[in-house]
Amino acid sequence: MAPAKKGILERLDAGEVVIGDGGFVFALEKRGYVKAGPWTPEAAVEHPEAVRQLHREFLRSGSNVMQTFTFYASDDKLENRGNKLSFTGAQINEAACDLAREVANEGDALVAGGVCQTPSYLSCKSETEVKAILKKQLDVFVKKDVDFLIAEYFEHVEEAVWAVEVLKETGKPVAACLCIGPDGDMHGVSPGECAVRLVKAGAQIVGINCHFDPTTCVKAVKMLKEGVEKAGLKAHYMVQPLAYHTPDCSCQGFIDLPEFPFGLEPRILSRWDMHAYAREAYNTGIRFIGGCCGFEPYHIRAVAEELAPERGFLPEASEKHGNWGAGLEMHTKPWVRARARRDYWENLKPASGRPLCPSMSSPDGWGVTKGHSDLMQQTEATSKDQLKQLFDRSKSQ
Amino acid sequence: MAPAKKGILERLDAGEVVIGDGGFVFALEKRGYVKAGPWTPEAAVEHPEAVRQLHREFLRSGSNVMQTFTFYASDDKLENRGNKLSFTGAQINEAACDLAREVANEGDALVAGGVCQTPSYLSCKSETEVKAILKKQLDVFVKKDVDFLIAEYFEHVEEAVWAVEVLKETGKPVAACLCIGPDGDMHGVSPGECAVRLVKAGAQIVGINCHFDPTTCVKAVKMLKEGVEKAGLKAHYMVQPLAYHTPDCSCQGFIDLPEFPFGLEPRILSRWDMHAYAREAYNTGIRFIGGCCGFEPYHIRAVAEELAPERGFLPEASEKHGNWGAGLEMHTKPWVRARARRDYWENLKPASGRPLCPSMSSPDGWGVTKGHSDLMQQTEATSKDQLKQLFDRSKSQ
Amino acid sequence: MAPAKKGILERLDAGEVVIGDGGFVFALEKRGYVKAGPWTPEAAVEHPEAVRQLHREFLRSGSNVMQTFTFYASDDKLENRGNKLSFTGAQINEAACDLAREVANEGDALVAGGVCQTPSYLSCKSETEVKAILKKQLDVFVKKDVDFLIAEYFEHVEEAVWAVEVLKETGKPVAACLCIGPDGDMHGVSPGECAVRLVKAGAQIVGINCHFDPTTCVKAVKMLKEGVEKAGLKAHYMVQPLAYHTPDCSCQGFIDLPEFPFGLEPRILSRWDMHAYAREAYNTGIRFIGGCCGFEPYHIRAVAEELAPERGFLPEASEKHGNWGAGLEMHTKPWVRARARRDYWENLKPASGRPLCPSMSSPDGWGVTKGHSDLMQQTEATSKDQLKQLFDRSKSQ
Amino acid sequence: MAPAKKGILERLDAGEVVIGDGGFVFALEKRGYVKAGPWTPEAAVEHPEAVRQLHREFLRSGSNVMQTFTFYASDDKLENRGNKLSFTGAQINEAACDLAREVANEGDALVAGGVCQTPSYLSCKSETEVKAILKKQLDVFVKKDVDFLIAEYFEHVEEAVWAVEVLKETGKPVAACLCIGPDGDMHGVSPGECAVRLVKAGAQIVGINCHFDPTTCVKAVKMLKEGVEKAGLKAHYMVQPLAYHTPDCSCQGFIDLPEFPFGLEPRILSRWDMHAYAREAYNTGIRFIGGCCGFEPYHIRAVAEELAPERGFLPEASEKHGNWGAGLEMHTKPWVRARARRDYWENLKPASGRPLCPSMSSPDGWGVTKGHSDLMQQTEATSKDQLKQLFDRSKSQ
Repeated sequence: MAPAKKGILERLDAGEVVIGDGGFVFALEKRGYVKAGPWTPEAAVEHPEAVRQLHREFLRSGSNVMQTFTFYASDDKLENRGNKLSFTGAQINEAACDLAREVANEGDALVAGGVCQTPSYLSCKSETEVKAILKKQLDVFVKKDVDFLIAEYFEHVEEAVWAVEVLKETGKPVAACLCIGPDGDMHGVSPGECAVRLVKAGAQIVGINCHFDPTTCVKAVKMLKEGVEKAGLKAHYMVQPLAYHTPDCSCQGFIDLPEFPFGLEPRILSRWDMHAYAREAYNTGIRFIGGCCGFEPYHIRAVAEELAPERGFLPEASEKHGNWGAGLEMHTKPWVRARARRDYWENLKPASGRPLCPSMSSPDGWGVTKGHSDLMQQTEATSKDQLKQLFDRSKSQ
Repeated sequence: MAPAKKGILERLDAGEVVIGDGGFVFALEKRGYVKAGPWTPEAAVEHPEAVRQLHREFLRSGSNVMQTFTFYASDDKLENRGNKLSFTGAQINEAACDLAREVANEGDALVAGGVCQTPSYLSCKSETEVKAILKKQLDVFVKKDVDFLIAEYFEHVEEAVWAVEVLKETGKPVAACLCIGPDGDMHGVSPGECAVRLVKAGAQIVGINCHFDPTTCVKAVKMLKEGVEKAGLKAHYMVQPLAYHTPDCSCQGFIDLPEFPFGLEPRILSRWDMHAYAREAYNTGIRFIGGCCGFEPYHIRAVAEELAPERGFLPEASEKHGNWGAGLEMHTKPWVRARARRDYWENLKPASGRPLCPSMSSPDGWGVTKGHSDLMQQTEATSKDQLKQLFDRSKSQ
Repeated sequence: MAPAKKGILERLDAGEVVIGDGGFVFALEKRGYVKAGPWTPEAAVEHPEAVRQLHREFLRSGSNVMQTFTFYASDDKLENRGNKLSFTGAQINEAACDLAREVANEGDALVAGGVCQTPSYLSCKSETEVKAILKKQLDVFVKKDVDFLIAEYFEHVEEAVWAVEVLKETGKPVAACLCIGPDGDMHGVSPGECAVRLVKAGAQIVGINCHFDPTTCVKAVKMLKEGVEKAGLKAHYMVQPLAYHTPDCSCQGFIDLPEFPFGLEPRILSRWDMHAYAREAYNTGIRFIGGCCGFEPYHIRAVAEELAPERGFLPEASEKHGNWGAGLEMHTKPWVRARARRDYWENLKPASGRPLCPSMSSPDGWGVTKGHSDLMQQTEATSKDQLKQLFDRSKSQ
Repeated sequence: MAPAKKGILERLDAGEVVIGDGGFVFALEKRGYVKAGPWTPEAAVEHPEAVRQLHREFLRSGSNVMQTFTFYASDDKLENRGNKLSFTGAQINEAACDLAREVANEGDALVAGGVCQTPSYLSCKSETEVKAILKKQLDVFVKKDVDFLIAEYFEHVEEAVWAVEVLKETGKPVAACLCIGPDGDMHGVSPGECAVRLVKAGAQIVGINCHFDPTTCVKAVKMLKEGVEKAGLKAHYMVQPLAYHTPDCSCQGFIDLPEFPFGLEPRILSRWDMHAYAREAYNTGIRFIGGCCGFEPYHIRAVAEELAPERGFLPEASEKHGNWGAGLEMHTKPWVRARARRDYWENLKPASGRPLCPSMSSPDGWGVTKGHSDLMQQTEATSKDQLKQLFDRSKSQ
């Protein structure tokens, strides 16, 4: 480990911008290493070179945080829904920590151990049971001495608070992110109130990740911030949104969109959308700015390029990228060279090339949350009969 | 090298489906290793691990061809337009061959050495000069003993014929691809006539790559095929289209679209679009089916999955992918599980999430081609004055 | 006059559905009798046959209310902004009353005298001055003995209250409509509070007209209703929305959309949209249901057809219209006959045929309201210099 | 009749622009006087005031031709498909002639008697039978002494030639319009060949009406013209397109679009689209320029305004219309006044306000034409059983 590396709180306290990474499950699904549906991170053991390469690409693009690839790596999730793996959760978590540390050491990045919501909570297991599940992951993070911890992707603030309580026991800095929008958590708790509860539970950094596009997430973090400030508390703020436009989402985010997860391509943000996002997040007072599902390395690079004036430097990968399209000065075709300017790209309204498709969708809206029988944990894949029932129900919505 | 590996012509003669890979420059640009504008492949030397990893992902996804990452690696291009590199063309070409061979040996794939159109041709250099440029790349391919050769991304059949003539001298099988659509080459030669010239020059495989979406490219290959058959000749056919929808292109393809190259996200094909593409290509009689710019490993996997019945097996990466969304049977949310069926994804019309954007664009149409002063080679980046002229001209179009 | 005709309050008290008419200025603009910009109703004198015909078409389509074509027929408006007319306001108002009465007598319709917001108010004239202007129009309505009065198209509840106070002096039933959405009036008074003030001022019917699409207007009327009920008051409710989809409006409605007023065609509601509107309005408890700008007779007919079960009869014009497309049973082409069914039309997502256009716009947002110098009354048309200033300002928004 | 009025051929021979009117069936359907499905013109007898008013609006908007409202007024059509009328074809045709003449006399317009394709032809009746049907309508036109004749809305050139042959016997000038696009007639005869046949049969004016948008129709007339000129013949040219955008049509035009006829609103052309159309038609050498289904009076006015420089005068209705939005100089809101300029409206890409709808549709494509059993004449409305068969078939397309 580089001895001189500043910790996450030191950086944020000093007013530095900390750039996060992008979501690994979606990026590695496209590369062939993660299965959509279970979304589990066994690739950390099975194909470490692929995970290492993705870490390295984010590092080169400007990320200061290597988040361990441990999403859904709790034992209850790994055993859940037909996933037959030859690896234990501990093995996966350990391998993920090693990979993150290896690449973090190649640059100015910290390692963050990540936990997320558990099937156990959705299945109404007790606080004790849920905390025990989270504790198992945490033991690895302590053993591997990660730099700080992130509890993220929680739809219910109640479970997030439990997570923060478990994480605090390690003595490491704790960040907590909900995957909610301006409407609040799945039990209807407002963003401001959620933030207050998390800060009171001990989170030093609070924020939003996943489920919504940058515009919506930044708006939600603003509400977190207002809640915290109104309560006379203090915190740092982070945001790691989707790289998909979701103006048509309902409260449960992109999961509800009919395009999830295999038809999201037309919604992918461009690098120019990322510039706008980074600026908006910064102006809102957020200093830990990263990404989640859909983010590719060039998206993070765009965030780093937008905030280069504030940070004072460009990321390594900008050696392969001209500012605001400047690289096009070297393109063969003259009319492409004419696009080598900021106002061209800032004003472009990119077409979808899909004239038979709409620009917005109607989200599914089942209103199912914690405790509903449809969300109960089962170790087998959904059966044909169960699928038929679901299909019939979706038709009648 | 695996001794029992069948050659490209053996496979095609036997009626096998050969699956190509995807375009490296766009994929590696997103990963931070290629600069948009010059688009040169120095990453083969600078960051071999990144190039190797992409080869491997395509191999796992079903590719039978590892194309050397040598696009625009001719010396005249490398010197062109402000690109100051510390590597010679020969170094890059050699490194690219080694990487392709290394990964090809991990599975059932062949190595194809690739050359493409030269700035020299566009600048009206003579046949002798152009052939000399191409010959330099070829020397490396011969030294490294690639399995076959691909001349691709030619806008003018005249230069493509020259390339085939040079390539034929090696004695290796030769494939030739133009980057044209149904309107023919930039001098107005029809697709059918182009194909006849290429076959007569000695190409055993002819086809189309880049510049247009799958629908358009397959249609153009159909025209190549009709030309060849009408002339009483024989050939194999290949297609390596964009992974972008381009219903609104003019004759010069996606280069002319205002979204090129930094706003193409909403046009990215889904995996389901790829199923339709693979089936359509197969039904047209094309047996070498791959991709170009925009293709990610999961796109190639979708091609391989669509053609699994014909090929008799699934690619390795399908271990991480349920057929037609079947992996969603294991998703937490019931309404997502209800999407685990083919007709759901086949009928989805995915929304862009961009209500302020149109579905089609008006392409630029400068009508500039070989010999035009705007296309003349220069070693410096376009100057501010030149850019201003271009900009003014683009406004008056 | 038909002696047995029930008055507006009798009908509403009895729970009957009263169907309004559509907006005359837009319909007659398309027919060549009203000038967009000044929007004044001199056609009542100049071309009575055109005005009479439009009344008759609405009557045949089911309207129970013939609203006098007196929009913007106040003297201050008629003199305003370059309109040089050979008729006095009194002449226009009288002619409009006679035409409305003539057609009302042909069926079961009432005559409603209409007044709307005045340039005087926007120019900060006093309550006395504004009331005097309104009083002049009213004198004609009293002389011509209209059946009831409608104060409509008010952006500021303050002026609407003044109008109600003037109208109440006649002893006739008074309806009052604001042209606001859920965000409230231009001074930020909430819809609920607006309604309370209007009811307290004496309006027996309150509602919303113009500026927004049916969905938005019905939502706003719901808020009026909740305000009235919460205050322990009683009222009847009316709604007369645009026949244009406006999901992208800001608080000032369709005036702010870049398409206003000459590019609204792609937003026009279909008859099937009108069925949904009528049902939604009815379910919200609104019983006076009509239309404003963009409504053509067939739109009103669709409202009447949707509510035929409640009303017990179809309008006369339904002799020329099959229920839910049933007339297509007699179409020549078999595939058009296959469209003669309700679920076909209810589920259709009609395409715009405009692939270069977006589905939503960014509204202008000048935030200019009562008292702003740009809104000051002037008798001359805006000068070239003034227009240039406006144009420059619009560019910098 | 005004004695000095110049005939249609005199005008065209002199190089004058002749402006047609718009389609009556669609305009009167929206006003409540024509039933979609049968589309027959009995309103000429039932509601003459409505028909007269529409004629007058087109006259005021600049039309030089009052086309008799006799579409589908052949006896075989009137008896067809469940239409039980109390009027004979002769009565309707006579009333329509009187109305057209009455209004033509109010200005500088000619009366054109119109015939169109017959159900008898589609049902494979003989040339003798079809001609007899057409002759019956013609007898009225001769008796009423119309100024010239238009055979229009023919999908098969064979029947159109028969019609021209019948019309020529009257000695009056004959115009002939097919409702085809660039792909030619329903039997695959090319536009150029169609035109040659019509001119040889004696038509002095040939053109295209209905079924396609202006862009497509003008393109098709260009092909007619090239055919005529290549054959060394001479003719005048006319065009009367839809006022709906149809970039997504197949060969049978807007009938095949899923939006036909009750969901076409988003496709309606704006007045600015009409300016472009008029200019394009004029530049193509077309001098008889009018409209068909979807045209409202303001659309014809826009044509007349665009061609005012060539014609030397504005239409009467332009008293109520500022050139290129100039009337907005008198609008209350300053940001609307800023739109009082040509480049604003010429460059506007109007939004649909329908984010859940696509911009293009997939047309139905049944490929059913003359002689197919589904097109056979029957006097009863399609039965429920027949409809079910059609519905099932449409699902399997």
